[in-house]
Amino acid sequence: MKLFRFGEIGKEKPGIETPDGKRLDCSAFGEDWSEDFLDSNGLERLSHWLSYKINSLPEVDRNARIGSPIKRPSKIICVGLNYSLHAKESGMAVPEVPILFMKATSSLCGPFDHIIIPRNSTKTDWEVELAVIIGKKATYVSKEDAMEYVAGYAVHNDVSERDFQLHHGGQWVKGKSADNFAPLGPYLVTKDEISNPHNLRLWLKLNGETMQDSNTSDLVFDVPTLVSYISQYMTLLPGDIISTGTPSGVGLGLKPPRYLKEGDIVELGVEGLGISKQVAVHAK
Amino acid sequence: MKLFRFGEIGKEKPGIETPDGKRLDCSAFGEDWSEDFLDSNGLERLSHWLSYKINSLPEVDRNARIGSPIKRPSKIICVGLNYSLHAKESGMAVPEVPILFMKATSSLCGPFDHIIIPRNSTKTDWEVELAVIIGKKATYVSKEDAMEYVAGYAVHNDVSERDFQLHHGGQWVKGKSADNFAPLGPYLVTKDEISNPHNLRLWLKLNGETMQDSNTSDLVFDVPTLVSYISQYMTLLPGDIISTGTPSGVGLGLKPPRYLKEGDIVELGVEGLGISKQVAVHAK
Repeated sequence: MKLFRFGEIGKEKPGIETPDGKRLDCSAFGEDWSEDFLDSNGLERLSHWLSYKINSLPEVDRNARIGSPIKRPSKIICVGLNYSLHAKESGMAVPEVPILFMKATSSLCGPFDHIIIPRNSTKTDWEVELAVIIGKKATYVSKEDAMEYVAGYAVHNDVSERDFQLHHGGQWVKGKSADNFAPLGPYLVTKDEISNPHNLRLWLKLNGETMQDSNTSDLVFDVPTLVSYISQYMTLLPGDIISTGTPSGVGLGLKPPRYLKEGDIVELGVEGLGISKQVAVHAK
Repeated sequence: MKLFRFGEIGKEKPGIETPDGKRLDCSAFGEDWSEDFLDSNGLERLSHWLSYKINSLPEVDRNARIGSPIKRPSKIICVGLNYSLHAKESGMAVPEVPILFMKATSSLCGPFDHIIIPRNSTKTDWEVELAVIIGKKATYVSKEDAMEYVAGYAVHNDVSERDFQLHHGGQWVKGKSADNFAPLGPYLVTKDEISNPHNLRLWLKLNGETMQDSNTSDLVFDVPTLVSYISQYMTLLPGDIISTGTPSGVGLGLKPPRYLKEGDIVELGVEGLGISKQVAVHAK
């Protein structure tokens, strides 16, 4: 299934996109796509409900805003330097274990919302990533069992302010957490639709020019490794987002570096997961 | 007011403690102490409701489990090395700007719940801290206005695994986020009850022996500075927890270092905010 959410910020309604591209309003299901939904076997219940309701559901207005495909989860945990060429362009070694950092969940937004360049920012950068959405509570899970805990995948732009991240004292979270720094979606694509998450092309264009173009086959640490590894350090909850890292081609790695300006258009996609697009604007 | 939550894990009910020490069940108010409660002027509405309901409220069973005084918030943001002697014992310089890091909110637990020593941990450590609870959405607030965004305060034990934090690759979040690494409470004490948050004794005892004993007057960055500073990097939401840093006396700083063992009893308090107490046990 392809799940999405639509409507005003903070008042999103649940929807699904059918295989033939119809976007259907699932408000009648009575639940949002949230931690509680996933935690209560929601995907299976939804699938069953759709099997007899699908022909009676209203279509979603094509002009409706699309929100994050999952309601604000307990955490967004990101993996640093998880493509070897990106580690190189960042001037860092390929890590021996996954590097983890967090984004504030208040940065989550819809896939077509604006990227907001924070006040005092001169280095707002892009990062296309494969995001994994957790399906059930995971603590100390093995690599072998890890995929049972995955609900699906989404496109994520791990927007980053490089000065805030690297030169404002201490930890990366400062450069990862501004409002709208986590455009997610358009869809949560359930894992059954993606035969191999480790062979997906992912790409990002800035004003039409390709900046990133890689494949998840180049991930240093794959999805089951990440789920298992993270679950040794903290409990993953349904809806939690693991952003698996970005390939080379970010602004920081260009010579000279290049960062987002007001009006820049960023378009990005991951094979099978759809395309998102954001315009950069300055914070008020 | 002193707000607390009681009952089974995940099914906590709201309560208040009266000035004469009675613990009253506020379930009849119909709201949990949560982001939504604070965001909708809940403290003022509760105070008004109590003014005519207080004599009809049932007392809470003295044996009831006490939970976190705030329902799981959007984030727990912690400040590193914010007491100069603690920076020294950690072998680090006093920072020029606040060092920020996150704890996974899945680590939040009640003030008398067990500290769970994670699997493969040999360096689980204690940190008494003054936690600030945000009362309303804060983005780019000035230091002058910052206190308007504070709802109140709580005792926090920022439990930390030093190897995970410092020697497992990268960012501190790995050593800060295990289950039950954030015992909070017993109370959310509203800010009107604390005349000066920068003159509060805070202390921690391990098996009856005083390990930390300091005063928030020694904070490098004070509460309004922290609220204002963090709000330049991310939006603080009602219920969000800012843990303001720990004074000297953590296990890492002892010569030789000393860490928690199964059965160890940790007791900690902040003047005016109550006392919490945890027993250390191994993760299953």
